[in-house]
Amino acid sequence: MEIKHLVSSKDLTKDEYEELLRRFNYFVENGISPDLCRGKIVSTLFFAPSTRTMNAFQMAILRLGGGWIGVMGEEGLSMEKGESFEDTIREYSCFSDLIILRHPDDDSADRAAKSSYVPVLNGGSGSREHAIATPWVLLSMAYYLKRPLEGLKIGIYGTPEINRCVKAMMPIFGMYGMEVIIDDLGHFPLPKEIEKRSKANGLKSLKYDKLDNFIGDVDILFLTRGLQKGIIPADKFPKEKEKMILKSYKPITKEHMKKLRDDAILFMLKPRIFEIEKDVDPDPRATHSKKEPYGETGAAIITYYLGIDI
Amino acid sequence: MEIKHLVSSKDLTKDEYEELLRRFNYFVENGISPDLCRGKIVSTLFFAPSTRTMNAFQMAILRLGGGWIGVMGEEGLSMEKGESFEDTIREYSCFSDLIILRHPDDDSADRAAKSSYVPVLNGGSGSREHAIATPWVLLSMAYYLKRPLEGLKIGIYGTPEINRCVKAMMPIFGMYGMEVIIDDLGHFPLPKEIEKRSKANGLKSLKYDKLDNFIGDVDILFLTRGLQKGIIPADKFPKEKEKMILKSYKPITKEHMKKLRDDAILFMLKPRIFEIEKDVDPDPRATHSKKEPYGETGAAIITYYLGIDI
Amino acid sequence: MEIKHLVSSKDLTKDEYEELLRRFNYFVENGISPDLCRGKIVSTLFFAPSTRTMNAFQMAILRLGGGWIGVMGEEGLSMEKGESFEDTIREYSCFSDLIILRHPDDDSADRAAKSSYVPVLNGGSGSREHAIATPWVLLSMAYYLKRPLEGLKIGIYGTPEINRCVKAMMPIFGMYGMEVIIDDLGHFPLPKEIEKRSKANGLKSLKYDKLDNFIGDVDILFLTRGLQKGIIPADKFPKEKEKMILKSYKPITKEHMKKLRDDAILFMLKPRIFEIEKDVDPDPRATHSKKEPYGETGAAIITYYLGIDI
Repeated sequence: MEIKHLVSSKDLTKDEYEELLRRFNYFVENGISPDLCRGKIVSTLFFAPSTRTMNAFQMAILRLGGGWIGVMGEEGLSMEKGESFEDTIREYSCFSDLIILRHPDDDSADRAAKSSYVPVLNGGSGSREHAIATPWVLLSMAYYLKRPLEGLKIGIYGTPEINRCVKAMMPIFGMYGMEVIIDDLGHFPLPKEIEKRSKANGLKSLKYDKLDNFIGDVDILFLTRGLQKGIIPADKFPKEKEKMILKSYKPITKEHMKKLRDDAILFMLKPRIFEIEKDVDPDPRATHSKKEPYGETGAAIITYYLGIDI
Repeated sequence: MEIKHLVSSKDLTKDEYEELLRRFNYFVENGISPDLCRGKIVSTLFFAPSTRTMNAFQMAILRLGGGWIGVMGEEGLSMEKGESFEDTIREYSCFSDLIILRHPDDDSADRAAKSSYVPVLNGGSGSREHAIATPWVLLSMAYYLKRPLEGLKIGIYGTPEINRCVKAMMPIFGMYGMEVIIDDLGHFPLPKEIEKRSKANGLKSLKYDKLDNFIGDVDILFLTRGLQKGIIPADKFPKEKEKMILKSYKPITKEHMKKLRDDAILFMLKPRIFEIEKDVDPDPRATHSKKEPYGETGAAIITYYLGIDI
Repeated sequence: MEIKHLVSSKDLTKDEYEELLRRFNYFVENGISPDLCRGKIVSTLFFAPSTRTMNAFQMAILRLGGGWIGVMGEEGLSMEKGESFEDTIREYSCFSDLIILRHPDDDSADRAAKSSYVPVLNGGSGSREHAIATPWVLLSMAYYLKRPLEGLKIGIYGTPEINRCVKAMMPIFGMYGMEVIIDDLGHFPLPKEIEKRSKANGLKSLKYDKLDNFIGDVDILFLTRGLQKGIIPADKFPKEKEKMILKSYKPITKEHMKKLRDDAILFMLKPRIFEIEKDVDPDPRATHSKKEPYGETGAAIITYYLGIDI
């Protein structure tokens, strides 16, 4: 039997996103039973730093009644003795039922999937892909909006050109026939290839405009992180580009929130460094500061890949 | 509903200490059922080193049938990418049902409690407070003494002036109408403010004397650690003070134990570095070397803060 | 009641190896029930690096329905504050039901066993012993061979002189009346003392020959690691010896596998660095690349030392 991995956001069909959404909603409504994954094990292998992805999956498998083992950094591993990455991954696939991987190399998730006996979910391979983020963002948006995703109007503010998560989400926005308007700070447009794929998937429209011109229209105001610390290595990210971002990325303020519709949400790819001012946090539409449904999201993804009926 | 935190030892009333003691005794007598916390999660966030506090809570939630996620140091966290401490804590409060925190900053626990969606228990914030230590020490004393805590006579040997745990315990000793005699090595008396609070709480008496003069009278001989490595930063702790302690702190020997009453106990705030000589360890009254009821203590505290009926 | 530890491979009798094998086979056939160790805790204390030993035991206790706490390196421990190794071990024996230990000092496991309230299993103490490896290797061999271990013919290729695992296995091979033929690269014979003990235990024969001369005869071709990185400190391992090994250790190739019997297995003490060429991995007789029964092995050992009936 072939093993289903999640190396790229392209690995999931719309039906599969819908199935994940169904499981997510089930857990939100019914809670997460600790009988579902008794004795099951998730390996969280984080060769690059993470707060959210790693802990969210550790949390989810614990809520489901299983447990986790893990790696943070390369210290203490047999890789220090010279073991290859592939051999290390294969060993972890003998230790567990599912692998969540983050690694600085762009091709790491592909290579891991090839040597693993269990599903590998890509939680960030270099600057290229963070495949897990795609269902993650989609389920969160559905949760906070509390209405169907089909045909939504999404405003994006920030640096789509260099943001791996926006690049992964766009084709999915296409699947759901959404309209997208981008304020790229004047300098960081979406790569053409991504635009093309998104439109091929059904994206209703893609426009560029100033945030002020569209903030009152959108269902979701979607912010990228400003800086790319921890994702793009410092030596590969030109200092002048960083300066340009810091100069042109104006944090979201209470004034912005006044223009946002009452039934819209503000959604940010955390960590928030400076992108949203702190006095925005109490706003009910500001989702980054709310009690997040991390357990439910993780449980939907884990049970799906473990083939557990819900 | 307001969340109950344990930021300072002052946050607990005598009734609450008694309730913790009742739960503790229940677990000692009946064992800890792994059905009590199935699917529940404790975050152990240790931004400063710990053996006991961290592992004791990880142990306790495992005995209760739940699990833990955690941080040790700041490495690998999104805080490295610039995320604020408050935002990091809020995320962990989305990952778990309870947070145990140790952090080098004095105000860290207050700040954490303000941004958390779940109870925060302070396991050491800088040199100021180790709120968890208070019920911890109280339950342990009750366990080893096997008699009521009311009106006990406690001898303290060491450096109360700089020991956060003694400073936190004194007002509790007050609640229980205890008598306290201190040998402060001639140099490290209890701060006046603490003495005042303890007396206001009901402390029967507070005297200073030489250890040899009171060792035969006390129910509990309570030792502070000699050095404060890992608690007070090296640059804030004058070298001459350290020398003075090392010169005047005479380790407890078998000779001392001969003078201690048969029904008294020797109690030390571990780790023991040099404060008790090793050949004292087998003495039945030396509690630091016995099989400690860490699971029962942790289970009492966790179930109380999670609102689980016992 | 005396506590049973596993400090040296000599601590186990043949009856005990057989009992471990019986438990292992039970778990292979029936799966591992997460009801067996609910609320039980294993401490994995790895003061020296490990992928396999540490994760295998964390995995096994999770499959059994319990949990783990652990140490990796010395960072963050109270040992940094000056606590002794013995005191640290005693504390962990208060936190858990079983301790798995790896430590760079040769006498660490003996010392740990003396201060622990729970069984200590030695997962590598310096270059001297890796007591856990002995049942581990034996159970794995039985698993892959699928026939009785009595009287097998084992070919060893590599550096027995400096390999702690081979040195521990030889007396066990003796217990099972095996025949052993060694190709020691011409330079690294088994220490005489080990040869003597193995024969006293019942070893049928011990010969030295070239790999090519015996590869077609053996039931098991057993490879040691080439280098000893991570086990023998760099300053204690002469550079010229390392060069000699790298020069004379010829990796196992597909050509070798043609000569191996169809019902034989290739068994390697991982990690594999260069000792087996990668295109050998798909060979069904190459066990190092197969889905390993780590959970079952760990579960057999854990349940035995916890005194849980299977």
